[in-house]
Amino acid sequence: MSRALIIGAGGVAGVVIHKCCQNSEVFTDICIASRTKSKCDKFKEELQDKTKTNITTAQVNADNVPELVALMKEYKPDICINVALPYQDLHIMDACLECKVDYVDTANYEPEDTAKFEYKWQWAYRERFEKAGITALLGSGFDPGVTGVFCAYAQKHYFDEINYIDILDCNGGDHGYPFATNFNPEINIREVSAKGSYIQDGKWVETEPMEIKRVYNFDQVGEKDMYLLHHEELESLALNIKGIKRIRFFMTFGQSYLTHLKCLEDVGMTSIEPIDFEGKKIVPLQFLKAVLPDPASLGPRTKGKTNIGCIFQGKKDGKDKTYYVYNVCDHQECYKEVGSQAISYTTGVPAMIGAMMILTGKWKKPGVHNIEEFDPDPFMDALNKWGLPWTENFDPVLVD
Amino acid sequence: MSRALIIGAGGVAGVVIHKCCQNSEVFTDICIASRTKSKCDKFKEELQDKTKTNITTAQVNADNVPELVALMKEYKPDICINVALPYQDLHIMDACLECKVDYVDTANYEPEDTAKFEYKWQWAYRERFEKAGITALLGSGFDPGVTGVFCAYAQKHYFDEINYIDILDCNGGDHGYPFATNFNPEINIREVSAKGSYIQDGKWVETEPMEIKRVYNFDQVGEKDMYLLHHEELESLALNIKGIKRIRFFMTFGQSYLTHLKCLEDVGMTSIEPIDFEGKKIVPLQFLKAVLPDPASLGPRTKGKTNIGCIFQGKKDGKDKTYYVYNVCDHQECYKEVGSQAISYTTGVPAMIGAMMILTGKWKKPGVHNIEEFDPDPFMDALNKWGLPWTENFDPVLVD
Repeated sequence: MSRALIIGAGGVAGVVIHKCCQNSEVFTDICIASRTKSKCDKFKEELQDKTKTNITTAQVNADNVPELVALMKEYKPDICINVALPYQDLHIMDACLECKVDYVDTANYEPEDTAKFEYKWQWAYRERFEKAGITALLGSGFDPGVTGVFCAYAQKHYFDEINYIDILDCNGGDHGYPFATNFNPEINIREVSAKGSYIQDGKWVETEPMEIKRVYNFDQVGEKDMYLLHHEELESLALNIKGIKRIRFFMTFGQSYLTHLKCLEDVGMTSIEPIDFEGKKIVPLQFLKAVLPDPASLGPRTKGKTNIGCIFQGKKDGKDKTYYVYNVCDHQECYKEVGSQAISYTTGVPAMIGAMMILTGKWKKPGVHNIEEFDPDPFMDALNKWGLPWTENFDPVLVD
Repeated sequence: MSRALIIGAGGVAGVVIHKCCQNSEVFTDICIASRTKSKCDKFKEELQDKTKTNITTAQVNADNVPELVALMKEYKPDICINVALPYQDLHIMDACLECKVDYVDTANYEPEDTAKFEYKWQWAYRERFEKAGITALLGSGFDPGVTGVFCAYAQKHYFDEINYIDILDCNGGDHGYPFATNFNPEINIREVSAKGSYIQDGKWVETEPMEIKRVYNFDQVGEKDMYLLHHEELESLALNIKGIKRIRFFMTFGQSYLTHLKCLEDVGMTSIEPIDFEGKKIVPLQFLKAVLPDPASLGPRTKGKTNIGCIFQGKKDGKDKTYYVYNVCDHQECYKEVGSQAISYTTGVPAMIGAMMILTGKWKKPGVHNIEEFDPDPFMDALNKWGLPWTENFDPVLVD
């Protein structure tokens, strides 16, 4: 018997909701809450006859702590799964503190302003969560999320020390458009145009945007270009994994995607400075968004697979050792199962599993924690069971 | 003593006006007329103290024949130089007929609708102009224009028959922007996305857009990619030059220009179908125009040269012969001289020279004529004198 409050009604939330409803033994009751209640009601209508989970819905503004507190006091959830906007994390954590509700969120890829995301804002809640006796699990998506679990698993079972980690995020999906973005184009564009960074000997090393490119041949996807990006989990992994000398994050981008983006930047179509147009101020990037395909429309037409995982190099019993663990996920199969493609699926499934870890007591530990701080074994089992099976390779091709 | 009415006040008109003012012996009086009289007045202010030519200005709507007639009856020009929009040619010809005024226009690169430009509309005036005793000179820009003079010159001096003509239009200018258009982007985009065509054995052969690409090493510019396009002068040259087996037109486009254009097309930014944006209907191409640099702003920043000419293959005294004649024009020098870069300069100078040919009686021949129908020698001399000197090469690299 447990009650989960799910905040958000977008693509990732849809996956979390579907997965909780498949897992009614743990999630006996869920409340779906978002600013637009009709979106929540739609999920309820779709699922309530197919699940034993009791579904209720609510309207809430996640920027408004008193509203969140009122909802939590009324619904009395055991856990709050935050799949709203990352900019709302702190408000939701405040409400959880006040109501003594456990907390899970997923990847916060980008901050609202131009500064890089850092954990310090959420880590500042550690003592308060500990005193309140509640658990906050940060970043329980895929990356961050499963990538941190992979690190903890490698450390626990295969290494005495891990010296090098490369996180490889490959999306081999094809939506058939010459150019479209899986997310808000604004975030995509910022990701590609931002400086890259990685951690070497305990320090951040910054690179020019897309400066470091590698080619990698991904299992079930094939050869892809990938680029070194800044990614938030590097910060916590460098602290939590022993013996780390270097940790990097790579993401694949097709040449066509990058060329289109570059051209659009060149002509000023990605600018956020308004221009005068027929007596009106219009932001070029917002006009571009209106011209591009709606990201939500890509689900049914995206074909191909994602392959996300970690390559480790380190020592075991005094010997060099390498290890690669990854998940392959098929866009079309995800869409068939939950109505979203693999990008949302690989984020939503771990959010449900993270919540389950806390609700079942396996990961109950008052305070604010990153995912690699917990025992990875039950999470790794759950990945195999709930749709994100993983593959191991003890002789992988390394990234130079 | 002669009076010229110049209709238009854009970039090409500016060059014509400057050149007439340099040539006051022929152009003792000019009247600059356009829809926006203030633009005409600006030219007058700039030039009146530096020239012996008497400058007057007038407001006229070139779509309105009675207005044009009233202006001609008042100003009593000997010739009308039409550097307004090509869509206004027939109205201006009607007014010239009624007032018995000689007529010159420049290149009409594109028609207003999607049909290809054809000479038939203007050729239909032949008999009326002949009966009225007035001369119409069609297409006295560079291409068409000087390219036709080059053909007539080759035919007169070097060949018994010309079998192959390739017209090569190279713009090696660099405005320093990743992407910008020298003209209205709509026309540029239509040019690149239209089917190409050339004349072979008296028939038009159509190609896919940009299907035929060649690389050519241009004197003073260097190696450039060039593409076969449809161009209006092929139609008249195929009729007027004897022995023609094939005539083609190539224009250079940089890979970056084409890539940007393709990307903009791909994402829908070149579409002329309005989209809904914040409660307003907006045509993406029109928004794109507003984002791109104003073509008029490119003049001061464009560096480099144009190289436009014709390569001929044919027979002389029973032997094979080849001949290449071309002009090289420097963007910055043009801007220094007349305040426009070479694209406008190479069109405006021949318009002045064409008018001079008629005013001085060298090309006075009642009827409607294409430029290659006249004796090329005085025009070729004038090119050297008035800023467009030409170079000959009797052993050019041929285009395959």
